[in-house]
Amino acid sequence: METANNAWFGDRSDHKAIENELDFAPKFDESGLIPAIAQDAQSGEVLMVAYMNADALSDTLRRGEAVYWSRSRQVLWHKGATSGHVQEVVEILIDCDQDALILKVNQKGPGCCHVGHQTCFYRSVPFKDAITSQDQVITLNERYSEKSYDPKEVYK
Amino acid sequence: METANNAWFGDRSDHKAIENELDFAPKFDESGLIPAIAQDAQSGEVLMVAYMNADALSDTLRRGEAVYWSRSRQVLWHKGATSGHVQEVVEILIDCDQDALILKVNQKGPGCCHVGHQTCFYRSVPFKDAITSQDQVITLNERYSEKSYDPKEVYK
Repeated sequence: METANNAWFGDRSDHKAIENELDFAPKFDESGLIPAIAQDAQSGEVLMVAYMNADALSDTLRRGEAVYWSRSRQVLWHKGATSGHVQEVVEILIDCDQDALILKVNQKGPGCCHVGHQTCFYRSVPFKDAITSQDQVITLNERYSEKSYDPKEVYK
Repeated sequence: METANNAWFGDRSDHKAIENELDFAPKFDESGLIPAIAQDAQSGEVLMVAYMNADALSDTLRRGEAVYWSRSRQVLWHKGATSGHVQEVVEILIDCDQDALILKVNQKGPGCCHVGHQTCFYRSVPFKDAITSQDQVITLNERYSEKSYDPKEVYK
């Protein structure tokens, strides 16, 4: 992996410019990270939420494939390097205050989630009248009747 | 605003259960926050990324309208209370490790972003060959030729 090209990232001293101008000035938080949302470029389905440090963002911009920072393993994480489930970047979007990224991607393979689903968002949360009890842990709903692949076959 | 119903949130001691079972056990980070992505329920467009503390999440679940925690103002933020641009929740999704939420919403009014656009993601980031210089700040691209509303008329 290469290191960050910090020349690519503008300064963040002028808040109005960050929102209204066109200099790329991503905000890395106190841990040096910015959230990056991977969205399927075809279906619009949100696949996962991960984080990038400056190196991961630079690598993603260079490669055109998603590279994240693994907070659990504390390493650069070229998504798909183990599973083959690479995310080919189609478009990258940044929000008003430049502290969140969207990656529209072509997800290679049967799914992005290590649990075995196409998306990490394979459960929904009931709300309002669908919450059956006020004093118990909410029970999630499953969105899919089966997994899209067997993670034991992929992550050996 | 009401306070959090902590009975709704399960414990996070069993990592396998968090991913594979159906108890709702959202992870609030060291600042007590979980990221929440608002996605247009019709178009699939991601509208914004915000954060919720336990109170904001409880309020959202009770009301069926998005309530966030404003990190800049340090208050509960019922989205649309000032602008009228309420987000009516259609579906809530949670990811594998339960540290990110998606809210599929019907966005009321002309847009969600205080800058005057339908989405906060009104600029894109060039990558690979579209980066014209290696040693200068990257120039963003505008996605829309004009704003969807005049924020000066809404936020007086």
